[in-house]
Amino acid sequence: MTEYPETPRAIPAPPVAGMVGAGQLARMTSQAATGLGVGFRVLAAAADESAAQVVAGTQLGDYRSLADLRGFAAGCDVVTFDHEHVPGEHLAALESEGVQVRPGTAALRFTQDKLAMREWLTGLGIACPRFAPVRTLAEVEAFGSWPVVLKAVSGGYDGKGVWVCETAAEAKEVLNHGIDVMAEEHVAFERELAVVAARSPHRQGAVYPVVETVQRDGICREVIAPAPGLPPGRRAAAQQLALLIASELGVTGLLAVELFETQAGLLVNELAMRPHNTGHWTIDGARTSQFEQHLRAVLDLPLGSPAMTAPAAVMANVLGGDDPDVYDRYIHVMAADPAVKVHMYGKPVRPGRKIGHVTVLGEDPAELGDRARRAASYLRWGREDGE
Amino acid sequence: MTEYPETPRAIPAPPVAGMVGAGQLARMTSQAATGLGVGFRVLAAAADESAAQVVAGTQLGDYRSLADLRGFAAGCDVVTFDHEHVPGEHLAALESEGVQVRPGTAALRFTQDKLAMREWLTGLGIACPRFAPVRTLAEVEAFGSWPVVLKAVSGGYDGKGVWVCETAAEAKEVLNHGIDVMAEEHVAFERELAVVAARSPHRQGAVYPVVETVQRDGICREVIAPAPGLPPGRRAAAQQLALLIASELGVTGLLAVELFETQAGLLVNELAMRPHNTGHWTIDGARTSQFEQHLRAVLDLPLGSPAMTAPAAVMANVLGGDDPDVYDRYIHVMAADPAVKVHMYGKPVRPGRKIGHVTVLGEDPAELGDRARRAASYLRWGREDGE
Repeated sequence: MTEYPETPRAIPAPPVAGMVGAGQLARMTSQAATGLGVGFRVLAAAADESAAQVVAGTQLGDYRSLADLRGFAAGCDVVTFDHEHVPGEHLAALESEGVQVRPGTAALRFTQDKLAMREWLTGLGIACPRFAPVRTLAEVEAFGSWPVVLKAVSGGYDGKGVWVCETAAEAKEVLNHGIDVMAEEHVAFERELAVVAARSPHRQGAVYPVVETVQRDGICREVIAPAPGLPPGRRAAAQQLALLIASELGVTGLLAVELFETQAGLLVNELAMRPHNTGHWTIDGARTSQFEQHLRAVLDLPLGSPAMTAPAAVMANVLGGDDPDVYDRYIHVMAADPAVKVHMYGKPVRPGRKIGHVTVLGEDPAELGDRARRAASYLRWGREDGE
Repeated sequence: MTEYPETPRAIPAPPVAGMVGAGQLARMTSQAATGLGVGFRVLAAAADESAAQVVAGTQLGDYRSLADLRGFAAGCDVVTFDHEHVPGEHLAALESEGVQVRPGTAALRFTQDKLAMREWLTGLGIACPRFAPVRTLAEVEAFGSWPVVLKAVSGGYDGKGVWVCETAAEAKEVLNHGIDVMAEEHVAFERELAVVAARSPHRQGAVYPVVETVQRDGICREVIAPAPGLPPGRRAAAQQLALLIASELGVTGLLAVELFETQAGLLVNELAMRPHNTGHWTIDGARTSQFEQHLRAVLDLPLGSPAMTAPAAVMANVLGGDDPDVYDRYIHVMAADPAVKVHMYGKPVRPGRKIGHVTVLGEDPAELGDRARRAASYLRWGREDGE
């Protein structure tokens, strides 16, 4: 060891990124912030939330309170989000006061108004499922034959925002919630795809490989990267679509685009402007994780390489089962497959709730899928063949 | 989205690993703990230490105080270390009080007594540089011809513990410090190697590829994984040596073995029982990072795969330069090489101090070395060709 003079310099502090919300997305973003050596704070509702458990820079407050948001923003150089629920008028107020809100209010409003998003996309000539605002059962019945998808335009009802209605009675029940809804064509898709892009204030763009997503009961269960058998032309189209939307919306940060793949082509299903479940595989499977990429983008750093670290990756979500003691099952999962990457969120177990994910890297997506499902099932149920 | 009953279960808490010390090793371990979903605490001397900046579970205290150590251990299921400086008698006291100290006192004492370590290794028949305890210049001169390496048996003098003495005058100066020293043969090695192994209380072992390390002025500057051109027999011998030492010492956690490669074979230079600078490349370059592996080992979880994620990886340490504003240079480094992985420790810049590292993955170690050196040099000096 060599001796050095003990004369620390004045430290020009690196910037501080603040994330509103303290769920697993903020938790995983904190790991990336630690690596980059940038400051990181979260605005949490409670000290036991997923990110609040681990982030030193946790501030307690209510994202629905402008005062709390202002207080939080005062300690941050940029403010970003792990969910879409901050009231639009608060975002606009912060922006007007000079807070660097990333992505900005103009882009974020489309995550809070699905009807406006559909109209905007259609105006750009981007293919979407057929849609219409509806208020009455007669309007739903006029829209098309059953099943019809009803979607909450904003927010939802008791945590639920999408209903696949098979009958008039089911549609009536949704309309009775008294919230704004829109009808959407029930697309007979072949599979679902997703693509995550990043865009920085300097207008640099980067896009990850297109992935296949497997949903069950409306929950993402598996993500296969890259989407097996996707023709190069369609892959390029999906990636260009994500970059186009990010650019046209002026997104700063990540944009996730969920797509239906049909025989006729691609339809845009949903947009999100934050790290996304369909990008969790990038922690282990890409040179730059989506969480690091989001930080780079909102801090206006050059974006990182989205290249994969292996020919294929499969991620499976770990949902809560009946037994809350997930840790008790680590030993079996880790012993059975020393190469499976386990990511747990520190969340209390509730049946069906996302409490973690596992990622497996290698060559053959089918083999990787088996291993990922086995690990996720064991963590959920204590056996390898659960659903 | 599907609706779930809002009935969180009682949460059986995952175990808490406590790390004494809050330097960069603890900081990087915290990232792994967040992913595994285990509790993690650090005992820090000050709130602005590298790990204390980011870890929610930071406790302030003095590692030289048994009371502080006891208080810290009370909140942890296992206690481990990011440095070797906790007084041995405190470790023994904690252990006798039932604290799970990992690695244990019996193993750790060899990191605090280099003479005992050499004698123990020699007793096992493991090749080391020739050594002898010395107290006087006459004893040093009797030991062998110049240069002679003098090493502090324990700790060191003002942060310095190894002196390569070219003359009697230099040796005299070291002896004048009044600390216990030993003489060691100055080995004319061909290069330096290192190997990191892990061992769990269940006696499972795992070992990473052998790496080449490049030191300058006594500081690790680069690590090349795997060590280029190492014959398979010598590679296996180095890995077996690390596993043997870990097993014979009863290490729980990581063991890093630094080696001299000579024409005649391998000599053990140093041992460390914690995550080690020569293993930082594993964050990006191995399925299981050394930090996750250390946590798995001390928590007695099955060990993770030490397989590489790419054919080759090169890590370069980022040392402090003259300009403290490292962040100002991120933009150049990241724009020049979107695939370089930057890891910064949040430490104040002092000339020559390790403040971060960069890792580059790929095929050709020479090309990777160029890229890693370029990035590290730019972060240090603001130019690509600094030394």
